[in-house]
Amino acid sequence: MKIYPIKGIKLASIHSGMYSKKRLDLSILKLPENSIVKGVFTKNKARSSTIDFSYENLKKKSPKYLIINSGNANAGTGKYGMLDIKKYCGELAKITSCKLNDILAFSTGVIGERIAVNKICKSLPKLFKILSEDNWLSFAKSIMTTDTQHKIYSKRIKIKNEWITVTGVSKGSGMIMPNMATMLSFIATNMNIDKKSLSKIQKEATKKSFNMISVDGETSTNDASIIISTRESKISFKNLTNKEKEDFVKIIFDAHIQLAKMIVRDGEGATKFITINIKKCLSFEEAKNIAMSIGNSLLVKTALFAQDPNWGRIICAIGNAGIKAKNINRYTVSFGNNIIFKNGCVAENYNEKKMLKYLKNKEIEINIFCNSGNNEATVWTSDLTYKYIKINAEYRT
Amino acid sequence: MKIYPIKGIKLASIHSGMYSKKRLDLSILKLPENSIVKGVFTKNKARSSTIDFSYENLKKKSPKYLIINSGNANAGTGKYGMLDIKKYCGELAKITSCKLNDILAFSTGVIGERIAVNKICKSLPKLFKILSEDNWLSFAKSIMTTDTQHKIYSKRIKIKNEWITVTGVSKGSGMIMPNMATMLSFIATNMNIDKKSLSKIQKEATKKSFNMISVDGETSTNDASIIISTRESKISFKNLTNKEKEDFVKIIFDAHIQLAKMIVRDGEGATKFITINIKKCLSFEEAKNIAMSIGNSLLVKTALFAQDPNWGRIICAIGNAGIKAKNINRYTVSFGNNIIFKNGCVAENYNEKKMLKYLKNKEIEINIFCNSGNNEATVWTSDLTYKYIKINAEYRT
Repeated sequence: MKIYPIKGIKLASIHSGMYSKKRLDLSILKLPENSIVKGVFTKNKARSSTIDFSYENLKKKSPKYLIINSGNANAGTGKYGMLDIKKYCGELAKITSCKLNDILAFSTGVIGERIAVNKICKSLPKLFKILSEDNWLSFAKSIMTTDTQHKIYSKRIKIKNEWITVTGVSKGSGMIMPNMATMLSFIATNMNIDKKSLSKIQKEATKKSFNMISVDGETSTNDASIIISTRESKISFKNLTNKEKEDFVKIIFDAHIQLAKMIVRDGEGATKFITINIKKCLSFEEAKNIAMSIGNSLLVKTALFAQDPNWGRIICAIGNAGIKAKNINRYTVSFGNNIIFKNGCVAENYNEKKMLKYLKNKEIEINIFCNSGNNEATVWTSDLTYKYIKINAEYRT
Repeated sequence: MKIYPIKGIKLASIHSGMYSKKRLDLSILKLPENSIVKGVFTKNKARSSTIDFSYENLKKKSPKYLIINSGNANAGTGKYGMLDIKKYCGELAKITSCKLNDILAFSTGVIGERIAVNKICKSLPKLFKILSEDNWLSFAKSIMTTDTQHKIYSKRIKIKNEWITVTGVSKGSGMIMPNMATMLSFIATNMNIDKKSLSKIQKEATKKSFNMISVDGETSTNDASIIISTRESKISFKNLTNKEKEDFVKIIFDAHIQLAKMIVRDGEGATKFITINIKKCLSFEEAKNIAMSIGNSLLVKTALFAQDPNWGRIICAIGNAGIKAKNINRYTVSFGNNIIFKNGCVAENYNEKKMLKYLKNKEIEINIFCNSGNNEATVWTSDLTYKYIKINAEYRT
């Protein structure tokens, strides 16, 4: 895949020693002047000090530098969390003659261990030697933890004869349930856009992407999704036609959705990629609740791993979604195009053979028509496998 | 264990053929006249027709017969669900010259397949031939599904020189998460007690037992917990001293809690029995939310399976519990007596060696002091293992 750099954003990644294994684990991003940055952060009450630090700084001004490490979450570190951030960000500020609140910091990795400030500080001069606009791939690799694949998105479209580029990375895996693992994402564009519009687009895009994989943004100690605009394009968002605005919004949405889907595809131990479409529902919220209840059901996930059309577990999950409907007799449930449940019971022309064949696919669609309204929601999830247990039982020790 | 029958309650269990394997799968209970019965039922919106049937009948009068099968949940069966129940309960009513609404029906097993009415009807005459007060053990065995062990409780105490007996059974396994599997329980006593008091005691006992294992009563399509009083004792609950009342309530609570714990101990694939005590909390609800958030965390469960003191996952789960506290720096977290988290980070004198040794135990206690109030809650749960996946991936196919 071709990766389009965002003019002015320079990146550098290094092995600082957070992991004993030699791998990239520390990155900095240098943003051009006039950049604007927006972020959405975890709502977890035990959030990392990095989230406190970045959230507060972002409220005040647009940052000049981002520093991101894997291998240590700097969460559950009490008063030391912020102390340590101030040490290594202080060092970064000194080197670059900026202020502490010109910096955002992000961490992902083991909770509860103090971060190796010295390793970071020692790496900073080396990082500045290799800063380049072409380092997005290394950046994507440096934020991986249990991820088996780096996650990167890059596209450009022509608007008013100018290339508008969107490039981003994400990390996350093992997110087969909310509350479980950290996701980070950093998406950048050269579109000259105002803060308010950027923030609105980001929030909507997050709602339909990272909050619709069966982990949502408000869950781990370190979750953050960041959007950057360098505002270097000659054209300005506010002067675009509605069609052009739509085209731009679409590509930002696409970046979020594709990066979110990459996280699901890399679900720890996952063998299936499952799309759950809820249609004709009373409200978006109800549709999302139903989809999440199915997507989070261990029994549904293990059945799909076993390629078993055990739709009863789906019905049970629907019944647990806090739905308002008095009964689910008006629902239809299909795997792909194969209707399996209708009128409150197994569909008349249900063909088990066809279904078993369908469930051998790596990509499974569960389609549910509630026939009670006109709203819809889509959630992406993975199956639950032996390997998930293995990965998470062996993560720390 | 000695099983004390409840005078007047006759039971019979048989292999009706719901399972191809020869095992008990169908039971009836005949209650003596003057019995009173109370029940709490699943709140799942896709509940089995048996729940509708039993709930409605119980509102009208106290039943004379209970009929319970395993091997088929009679849920997700649409209009056929109630039709089929009326057929086999109609047959039972005919044989016993009672009315349809003198009967309660319960089912547990696979969802979505029609129940084998003929097998039940054919078995009824055989069941009546073997009715006996001494069949509690067979009853306990007949309601098992993925359970590896039958679950039975029996105790008696002397009050005012008369034996008051409490005997009960439960089923359930694989309940390592809410929303997951069916639990049933049937608890009986000879205490002469009024409906209102019995109902009140049952509700309180359920709140502290079946709703505190990390599956709660409102979740599967078929969950039900039934309490029966034959009212055959000479002494009457309302004439007891406060101390005597307490003794009786205690034994009813104990029956509920022990039967609930047996379900957790039989958790599908479980290797650990985990008690989560939340103390000094703002409210019971907050304490329960924290305990459940920990008890339902796949990451905590896999870490405990791996005997890994990954307390960061506990902190993360606390942060996700929707707690009101601004920070969790005042919390202390211990495994057994070993404090691991204090003042927002790892405890000063934390001894990893000692902890690793502690985590080798089969029974693990997680003790959390919130230091924000005077309420507490205890939740029981199990670890998450390879075997859980195996059991649930192979259940139906």
